[in-house]
Amino acid sequence: MIDELVARLLDGDKWALSRVLSFVENGYPEGREAMKALFGHTGHAHIVGVTGATGSGKSTLVGALAREYRTRERTIGIVAVDPSSPFSRGAVLGDRIRMQELTLDPGVFIRSMATRGALGGLAATTNDVATVLDAAHKDLIIVETVGAGQDEVEVADTAHTTVVISVPGAGDEVQAIKAGILEIADILVVNKADQPRADITAQQLHAFLNLGRDEGWEVPILKTVAIKGQGVVELADAIDGHRSFLETSGRLEEARRTRARRQLLALAQGELLSRVLASAEANGHLEELVESIVRRELDPHTAAQRLIEAAD
Amino acid sequence: MIDELVARLLDGDKWALSRVLSFVENGYPEGREAMKALFGHTGHAHIVGVTGATGSGKSTLVGALAREYRTRERTIGIVAVDPSSPFSRGAVLGDRIRMQELTLDPGVFIRSMATRGALGGLAATTNDVATVLDAAHKDLIIVETVGAGQDEVEVADTAHTTVVISVPGAGDEVQAIKAGILEIADILVVNKADQPRADITAQQLHAFLNLGRDEGWEVPILKTVAIKGQGVVELADAIDGHRSFLETSGRLEEARRTRARRQLLALAQGELLSRVLASAEANGHLEELVESIVRRELDPHTAAQRLIEAAD
Repeated sequence: MIDELVARLLDGDKWALSRVLSFVENGYPEGREAMKALFGHTGHAHIVGVTGATGSGKSTLVGALAREYRTRERTIGIVAVDPSSPFSRGAVLGDRIRMQELTLDPGVFIRSMATRGALGGLAATTNDVATVLDAAHKDLIIVETVGAGQDEVEVADTAHTTVVISVPGAGDEVQAIKAGILEIADILVVNKADQPRADITAQQLHAFLNLGRDEGWEVPILKTVAIKGQGVVELADAIDGHRSFLETSGRLEEARRTRARRQLLALAQGELLSRVLASAEANGHLEELVESIVRRELDPHTAAQRLIEAAD
Repeated sequence: MIDELVARLLDGDKWALSRVLSFVENGYPEGREAMKALFGHTGHAHIVGVTGATGSGKSTLVGALAREYRTRERTIGIVAVDPSSPFSRGAVLGDRIRMQELTLDPGVFIRSMATRGALGGLAATTNDVATVLDAAHKDLIIVETVGAGQDEVEVADTAHTTVVISVPGAGDEVQAIKAGILEIADILVVNKADQPRADITAQQLHAFLNLGRDEGWEVPILKTVAIKGQGVVELADAIDGHRSFLETSGRLEEARRTRARRQLLALAQGELLSRVLASAEANGHLEELVESIVRRELDPHTAAQRLIEAAD
């Protein structure tokens, strides 16, 4: 049955793709089986992380970017990790019609991720979802994250190209710096650039970049007005430019290695815990240890050691 | 040396407390040793999670709450998990003087958490930090989180009482619902309640609660103006009321069990991964597997299985 699904997915069937993604997101064995079968068909897609706070207009920008790439005849996968994203909630506000157009385009596949309870962590699951979309012949996969919290930073970390969106004023850029988000940016965008203070924000970002990064890639700072489509062509060009840089500089190889290492470790961690859990639950050992902690007879670190030893 | 530090910590020494917390946050063996020694001295503190978006005024509210509890002669620990919190950045804006007063009060200990790269996950580390503060005789431990992302939800999950802050208007409440944050709230607060639409926001929250929660505790919806100290006495009362409810209903026992189980599993997972990593790095197996994934010879799931088997 998985073979059939995988064959249909590789053949471009949207329904099969949805089914496989559900298996993967829920951590079902069928998902793992499908991932194994699909893996040989991956490695083509370019994965772009787009991150920015709620209200930065990142969903609108992602939509505009997807439409721009469609005019360049590229197929697109969009993974919305932010639960407040319009891609998650269904179409909203002024974007309604344009979002619907995207949804109906057979060259575009949109997936909204459940952020709670993802088995093995959100980053690992997002990585798997991107891999499946890659096998499903998407040229460009855009992963949209809210950019707050460690999880989201890790998600962005798994992209080939990371775009970080700021908006003018309000000290937003300072918060982004604090959260470690700016440090992983390959391209910086000041969206809503028709608002006052857009130039000041761009200058602040520029000053931050001058603090000492030099890795052969000069991080461009672009101004966009996503809602009007302004600056979107330049952003698409910058993303393509970064891809070329990665390829010619050998960094793509490096990025792939980093991504593979992360994925491997996240999966191993998840697998290890399920093994220990299965064994501990089978013999009632887990509840025993929990009780000892509650009664303060055993500290959690010692209990964790015993849990592992009991499963060996 | 750890025995000496632990003895001094139990004796109320702030410096010893800081040292132990650094060990714990960095995942050093000294931290584990200290945790073991301290664990028998814990179980007294009430842990309060305070969560809300950036701009909801939650740091100001946490500060006001801490001052209110100080007038009730309770000792306070504040753990700021949000990297953009004034507690992390040092005093800012109008809160400057009041924050400094708090910092200088010997009955208050403030700790800002590094959110990146926390070993074993942010929730596990925050849990350990709260445990150490508990041993250091803090009556009330306030954990301040930004409330976006799975990590933050998990952090809030480890509290005895969870306070979720909304602000009037802007559709904020809808986003909170989406993020699953409202579902874990024991107390809801509409801060900045002197702004328009505060009543509408409170009504929306009320309607959401009526969607079918009935667990013996009626979630209060409180209005505060943190910057003016309005509603803070009522919030402190509500937190104490929830504590009493937990005690009399037997829920505190249940909450402790849940907390112990989470902590145990998080620690076991971290410990397992470090064992596998140590073994895989020692024999070069990790890099071999990474290379096979990069060359698409081996899918990550199969590689993870091999990594684990090689370490057995």
